[in-house]
This record gives sequence, C-alpha cells and structure tokens, in this order.
Amino acid sequence: MIWKGTWLSKDEVQLNIDDPGFLYGGIAYETLRTYDLKLFAARYHYERLLTTLSHLGLELSMDYSTFREILQEGVEKLKKESSIRVIVVPRGRFSAFEYEPAGCELIVYLQELKLQPLNFVKVKVSNVRKIDPSSTPSDLKVVGRTDILLAKRSKGDAYDVVMLGSHGQVCEGTFSNVFIVKKGKVITPSLDSGILPGITRLNVIKLCENLAIDVEERWVEPSELYGADEMFLTHTSRGIVPVNELDGWRRFNTELGKFLASKFEDFIKTVKENWL
Amino acid sequence: MIWKGTWLSKDEVQLNIDDPGFLYGGIAYETLRTYDLKLFAARYHYERLLTTLSHLGLELSMDYSTFREILQEGVEKLKKESSIRVIVVPRGRFSAFEYEPAGCELIVYLQELKLQPLNFVKVKVSNVRKIDPSSTPSDLKVVGRTDILLAKRSKGDAYDVVMLGSHGQVCEGTFSNVFIVKKGKVITPSLDSGILPGITRLNVIKLCENLAIDVEERWVEPSELYGADEMFLTHTSRGIVPVNELDGWRRFNTELGKFLASKFEDFIKTVKENWL
Amino acid sequence: MIWKGTWLSKDEVQLNIDDPGFLYGGIAYETLRTYDLKLFAARYHYERLLTTLSHLGLELSMDYSTFREILQEGVEKLKKESSIRVIVVPRGRFSAFEYEPAGCELIVYLQELKLQPLNFVKVKVSNVRKIDPSSTPSDLKVVGRTDILLAKRSKGDAYDVVMLGSHGQVCEGTFSNVFIVKKGKVITPSLDSGILPGITRLNVIKLCENLAIDVEERWVEPSELYGADEMFLTHTSRGIVPVNELDGWRRFNTELGKFLASKFEDFIKTVKENWL
Amino acid sequence: MIWKGTWLSKDEVQLNIDDPGFLYGGIAYETLRTYDLKLFAARYHYERLLTTLSHLGLELSMDYSTFREILQEGVEKLKKESSIRVIVVPRGRFSAFEYEPAGCELIVYLQELKLQPLNFVKVKVSNVRKIDPSSTPSDLKVVGRTDILLAKRSKGDAYDVVMLGSHGQVCEGTFSNVFIVKKGKVITPSLDSGILPGITRLNVIKLCENLAIDVEERWVEPSELYGADEMFLTHTSRGIVPVNELDGWRRFNTELGKFLASKFEDFIKTVKENWL
Repeated sequence: MIWKGTWLSKDEVQLNIDDPGFLYGGIAYETLRTYDLKLFAARYHYERLLTTLSHLGLELSMDYSTFREILQEGVEKLKKESSIRVIVVPRGRFSAFEYEPAGCELIVYLQELKLQPLNFVKVKVSNVRKIDPSSTPSDLKVVGRTDILLAKRSKGDAYDVVMLGSHGQVCEGTFSNVFIVKKGKVITPSLDSGILPGITRLNVIKLCENLAIDVEERWVEPSELYGADEMFLTHTSRGIVPVNELDGWRRFNTELGKFLASKFEDFIKTVKENWL
Repeated sequence: MIWKGTWLSKDEVQLNIDDPGFLYGGIAYETLRTYDLKLFAARYHYERLLTTLSHLGLELSMDYSTFREILQEGVEKLKKESSIRVIVVPRGRFSAFEYEPAGCELIVYLQELKLQPLNFVKVKVSNVRKIDPSSTPSDLKVVGRTDILLAKRSKGDAYDVVMLGSHGQVCEGTFSNVFIVKKGKVITPSLDSGILPGITRLNVIKLCENLAIDVEERWVEPSELYGADEMFLTHTSRGIVPVNELDGWRRFNTELGKFLASKFEDFIKTVKENWL
Repeated sequence: MIWKGTWLSKDEVQLNIDDPGFLYGGIAYETLRTYDLKLFAARYHYERLLTTLSHLGLELSMDYSTFREILQEGVEKLKKESSIRVIVVPRGRFSAFEYEPAGCELIVYLQELKLQPLNFVKVKVSNVRKIDPSSTPSDLKVVGRTDILLAKRSKGDAYDVVMLGSHGQVCEGTFSNVFIVKKGKVITPSLDSGILPGITRLNVIKLCENLAIDVEERWVEPSELYGADEMFLTHTSRGIVPVNELDGWRRFNTELGKFLASKFEDFIKTVKENWL
Repeated sequence: MIWKGTWLSKDEVQLNIDDPGFLYGGIAYETLRTYDLKLFAARYHYERLLTTLSHLGLELSMDYSTFREILQEGVEKLKKESSIRVIVVPRGRFSAFEYEPAGCELIVYLQELKLQPLNFVKVKVSNVRKIDPSSTPSDLKVVGRTDILLAKRSKGDAYDVVMLGSHGQVCEGTFSNVFIVKKGKVITPSLDSGILPGITRLNVIKLCENLAIDVEERWVEPSELYGADEMFLTHTSRGIVPVNELDGWRRFNTELGKFLASKFEDFIKTVKENWL
C-alpha cells in the first residue's frame, strides 16, 4: 500500500520520469514498524526525518499528529503488523547545476512486517569508511548514501556489515547500530563517533540502565570489536540481534545479548516516549 | 525526449513508484553535449560511466557503438545542439537491508542545449568537504552524492561552489573542475586530490600543452585559490568559464582564462580522441 | 639563568649526552612572562604543564606554590621583566624500544624579556596540517612537535605561520592563537578545532566580553581568514598582535585589533585568576 | 662509546643545557647494527637519514664513505657485534618563535648488541593513530615523534604496539614494520599507507620473492590483522620476529614467520646493496 495524498495500491501510482528526487537525489527516508498494530517510536522517527529535511533545506508542511494519523490509518487498513517506509521527495528547481528545493512531498510505503527467524547471525567489517561528518552529517538519512550502498555490496551472506569511521573508529552497520559486551559491560559507539542516533539503540541503552547493567557510550576501536565477549546489533524491525560470528571466524558468546533481547519488547512497551 | 528502449516524449514514460533506484539510490549518470550536432567525447563519458557502474557492481550490457548510435539518433531526431543526461538505473534485490544488483537499465534524457550568456561569474568556497575516497571513490558519479547536494545548497547567486577535500585541499566544483593561474602558470588539482577526472579538464590540460603554457597537476592549497591571479572552471556544457569573483570580494583577472576559452572549441575539434 | 635544583648561570650546568629527553624526546614545556616583575597567569601555565605531563605518563612532584616560588625567586634575582621557559625532562627506562617514564625533572630558563617593536606584521598560512587529536592531543605541549617544527620552516619573514587542521579548518599559529574580525564580531577557532587552549586567547575572549564585543568560538574556514576585515594573533610574550598582511598580498585593517591591544594590559591586571 | 668529532667514553662528553635540539627538537636519528662486525645496510640508513634531514631543512656535510668509515672504526674499537644509534643535532637560530637551522652535528652512540632470547611475543594494537603525512612525512625519523611516544606508553609487556593510520589502516609498530600471512600469502602495508620505509621490511620482501612466496604491498585493514594466519614484525636489530599473540587473546601460528626468520641472515648476506 502506498500513501501519496491518499492510500492506493502499488499499481495505481506512478512517478514522472523527471521526478527531481529520481534524477538528482535528496530523498529523505525513515523506516518504522508497529507492535500490536501500534506505531513504535513514531515521534522519534518524525523528528529525525525533520532533521534530515533541515539539512537538505526542506520543510515538511505536515505536523506530527497528521503524520501519525496517516500512518496509523494505513496500519488499520492493512490490519497486520506493519513495516513502513516513509520517504520525502524534494520538489523545486533541480538540474546538474542547481539544487533549489521548494517544497517536498511525503510518500508512504506500508506492507506486512514479515520477519524470517534468524539462526546463526554473521557480520562482517566493511572496508568502506563511513562518510566523515565534515562531508555529510551522520544523521542525514537519505536514499543512496554512497558509503552505505558501497558497504552493502560486500555483504554476501552476512546479516549486516559494520563500518568504521573516517579515523578508523567503529561506527555502525548499514541499517543497524553496534553494541559489544566486555566483562559484563555494554559498550556502544557514542553519537560523536559519527553515527545515526538509532532509536532502538536509545531504547537498549535505557533498558540496560533499567536493568542496572553498565553502559558506556564512547569511541570504540576495531580491536575492541574483535576482542569483545559478545556483539549485538540493534535496528527498528528486529530490536536486538545477537551476533554469532564476525568476519567468518570470530565466534561470540550471545548470553547477555539474548537476555536483553528477551526483555526488549516488554520494556519498550513501558516507555511512554515510544508511544506518543 | 527520453530514450527508454526507444525514443519517447516525456509524457509517454513513467516510473514505477517502487523503482529501486528511486527508493534505494545507486543511479549512475553522465552529462554530454554536442558540437555541430556531433557527440563530444562520448567515448570518455561511456568509459567513465562503466567505472561508476563497476564501483556499484553493475555491468552495462551495451557496447560503446550501440550506446553512441542511440545518442546520435536522438540528436538527429532533435536536429539541435543537444544536452544529454544519461542515467543507468540498477535492477535487482534492494531493500533497507539488501543491495544486490542484477542488471541495470539505461535511460537517456535529451534536450536542446541552451546556454545563457554569462556576465560576471561568481564562485564560492563551500564548507562542505568532498567525501574522502576511503568512503566513496571520487569517480563514482551517482545521483544524490550527499556532499555535492549539500554543497549546492549554499550556492546562492554563485555559478558554482568549490569544495575542499577531507584534508582541506582544493578539489573541484559541484559540476566543474577548478584551475588557477599564477605567474603565467596554469595549476589544477591532481586526480589524487580526490576529484572526478573531468573530460573538459583533460582537454584544457592538452590545450595548454599545445600552446606551450606550463600546467601543473598537484595538490592545491586554499591559500593558492585566494592568492591566484586568475581562476577558471571547466565543465562539459560550457568548456572554460573564467571566474570574476570568489566569495563575494576576491576579484580576479580573466586574461589567460579568456584566451584559453577562445581557443577551446577549435582545439577540441582537432583532438581525435574526442570524436571516436 | 638556569634553575636545576638551584639557580645557576648557563655555563655552570651541563647535560649528560645520554639524557633520555635528548635521545628520545618527551620534554614538556611552557613559556611564561612577567608584568611589573610579577608572574602572569602562572597557575594556568602550571596546570597546562600538568596536562601535558599526564599525557606523557609523568607526574611532577612539585606543588603549585613551590613552582611559583622558584620562578618568582628567579625574577627577583634578575630584577628585570622576564621571559621564562620551563621544561620538564622525563627520567626512566627509554630506548628505541621502550618508553617507561619514572619521574621527571624541572628545569627553568629565565632571561630578560626583550621585545623588539613590531612594524608591519606579516603572517602566512602553512601547508603543514596540525596533527589530528587522534594522533596527538592538541594540548600536548612538548619540544619538537613535528607539525610545528615543519610549519616554522616556511616562516621566512613572517611573524608566525597559521596552520590548518586535519580537515582543513583554521587552527592556530606555531606559537600563537588566531583571531579574525568580521563586521565588528570577533571570531576564533574553538578548542575542539584541535588547538592549544591559549592563556592569552582566554584573556582576550574575556576582554571582548568585558567590552561587550561579540565573540564566537567555533570552527573557522580558510575562506573566512582571507575574507576577514581584521586578523590578530595572541601569545604570552606580546599579548595581542594585529596582523597587517596575510600570504604577502592580503592587507587587513587593524582598528579593532589595536583597540583591544591598547586595553589588554590594564584588563589582565584586573583579572584575579591571572595572579594566583 | 660516543663519537662527537672523535671517539670518547660516555663520561667524557656533555651537552650544553641550551643545545637547540634539546630545547626545540628536530633531532634526526637512525639505528644500525652489524653482522659479523660488518655494518648492515649502512648506505640505506645514510640515505634515509638524508631524507629526514632534508625535511628539516638540514644538510649533512659528510659524504657516505666518511660516515661509513667512522661507524666502522667504532665497531673495530669495540670489537663486538654492535648496536649503533646515529643522531644529527641541528644548529642554528632556534627559539619559541624561530626554527632557522644552520648546519648540524653528527653524534654516534655505539654499544654491544645484546639480544635477549624471545619466547612468547605479544603485540598490541594502539589506539594512537600514526600522524597523517599531511602533518608529518612518514619518513621523518626524529626523536620524540609524539605519535610513537604516546603509542609506546601503552606497551606494557608487549614486544611492540601496532599503530593504525589516520584512516584506520594498519601502519606499523613503534620500531618495527608489520607483516601478516594469509593462506600462504605474505601481506604488508604499502609505503603509501603512511609508514617508514623499513630496511629490514625491504629485505624481507626480497627474501619472499627469492623464495617464490607471494608478497602483497597494499593497504591493510584492521580486520585482516585479527583474521590473519600469522603475523610477524621486522626491524633492524632482530630481523624477523614472529608474533605469538595479539591483544592478549588472538593466537597466531608462526610457521612461515619462523621459516623466513631461519633464512633471513643467510639471505641478507647475499644481497650486495646491504654491504655497500
């Protein structure tokens, strides 16, 4: 189902071949999901979308409650646990020479959330560095970020690939945040490492605090990744994903990761900010 | 006019709303032009396109002579000096989690080349750094490179904005290469500064050599930009563009730039490689 | 005059040829001066010295009041406005293979402060980048920092050379901090640009605030240096040094710089923290 | 034994307390050794010393044959396998404000080469990045390079610490070059990774070629270090040092490293360039 002013089926909607977003880029996006048919962390996603848009010089002429209503309406039509991709396409004077946005349009893609069970989760470290914030803000979430595209290319049978930053610090996966466990302590790259402020990441930090588990947000070295006791990824659709193997040879314990995963869904349901 | 398997008018072609290039990026492009209705440097552009595609894991199943014929056919239909935008859209399994290209499709946009006369050419230096090659190869020419998009945002009434590289070295404009003149010598950032290997740039270097003017390709410091006697930009549609003013206050002489511009068209017509 | 446990003349003191600081480096230093025979900002310098020592794994077994007394005693012996270089030489197991500091020794060089009048102050921008904090903390003030040494080499007849940082941002001179003036506003690189926290810099910021002049501490681009209305340097021995010319061609106004310089000495005498 | 114009014992030589090298840095050095009382690779070391000096704006007024003679004379006096540290101390106008070298002085430290047997060789990866070449050339071999000093601090019981470069690429140890072995192939960071052109490194590459073992010089990722089959270090005094353990947990096979080490001494004796 597609929302483009109104809810339509995929075949009812087409794009102009000269849509500026298609020809010149600058399409912002967010990925959301529901729990029990209720939108999870919609406010966080909406605000992160506004941040991306402001980097691009765009303003969304739609307040949060309208945004929320449209999405919730779609979920109710579908009547299923949903995976939602929201994109904002710029409008304006674009060419090879110009990028003068004037307005933008929201499009929503909504479909049933289907999660295949995960067995043995493999992760790789990419040799593509995350783009430095001096070139592109870490929280600019647009279609076709070249670092992410290129890193994804080497994914093979891995669940996700982890990218290092411009100084070689550990950053994040192409669609997930990275956590390691060392001697019972949970460690994750700080926002100033040059990462996207993941919403699940934030919830996991709160969960650890709630469980009185030590959490450190700071720069993380590649050596710490390989020397970790455990590693897990976090992202919207799956929450916490314990990692079994890094780079095809490094096996991890998954005890604390699995424990946190088992507590995750109940915990996030208790956090008011996730359901505004 | 659009070529998508065959030549059509803009209104006859539409895109699916879930075109992977639209939703996930990875659209390669090149911009070409004609001189006297003949394609300029088409071979260079074709090969640079292949380079971009190979970075993306894509292969174009179309050899150069077919590529050339299609473009030339379009020009002959239009019967006008043409500006041509060629894009290659990936096909395959794409999602928030995957980028597994399988094939790609060429689309050609062709329209009359209209160049407004330029009077007083202003240029700015952007504070957005060019993406470092460790994150994205400099010769990956895709739609929506975020560094270029963000740099274009601050263009205002400037003709183009010049970007510095990740170490602060002078790189290039968002659609042009940069040259300076100092004491009769022509200086331009070397390819290893992290720039796109511009085709007009290459022709200008050859032109200087042909005219026995010293040319240096090397890392250029911002201080040299401000301290230059002259500055000019080069790009496909206009060839050589002498710059009158940098950052709203630094005025340049344009003597050598204008002289080179006056020789440019005749010169490139004599270079066999441009017309293969 | 040299203090090495006690005050001696230069000829009375010698070093062992295998002094580890000489052979393996790691010598911390600070440069102080007096006003009216009283030590200026000695506490700040002492604390900055401790920071450098802690980066090196060294601890100075001398508290501030003893440190201060020794220096003041020297000044009183000399009975002249003094320029003081304090160095701390590491002791321990050093070799090509090891750096295991065990203790350190303070040496003080004290001589009359002689300042030649400055006429036309020239400054250059170096093409040597400041070492990135990921390699060496910006506030590690040791003898023989290679970036400073190499930048100094191109000084020629300039008063100081300004270094850009690893991303091309404006940092500081080899012995001074940099300020620019634009439309009546005073702008200086923020500490997170990767600069030494200059003590005179701090006093100048306070002076501006005291005079209700806008001061911005933030990342500064090279373009802003060349486009500034004024530029001035600050360092301990001279306070504020208005710059007349940058890179041999860019002339600056010096009005606000001279005004601030005229207020500087009276102001710093009123700031209690400078005389602790 | 010290050579300072003539051979003296350590106690016969002292330094002035205001030696510019001591106070302001810029002391070049090289470390050599003998095999069978003959200088190994003296010409390479001499030339590398000249490179360092040229970066510093210094010229050594001593040709290679004189340099060689002095060192060989020392070895003959000592009549023992020797470890030699050669330093070149700058002379000129140095101060906090100036670095204007005018001449320099060679000092030689010579002592018996004593190598303790190595059992279990541990190595760590440092979190101090190698200084980027834009700040300091990789082949500037001076006393007190702050990156090396700071990396050495965390050595603990490790034999050496490996430093990553400014982009996170594997560079080298604080006194050694790094090699890994993967599937029978020997891999070492290329010179453009930002490393010192090690003389033993060069000999090891030649040895591998001589033994028809594949050698790759290229950028090496941290992931490759941890995923390697073997790792070994190379440096002048010991030649090849197979590594048993990285970061306290990653154990390596040492088969090929030991094999190469067993061939090393005989091989280098056959290479004419080592004995010029």
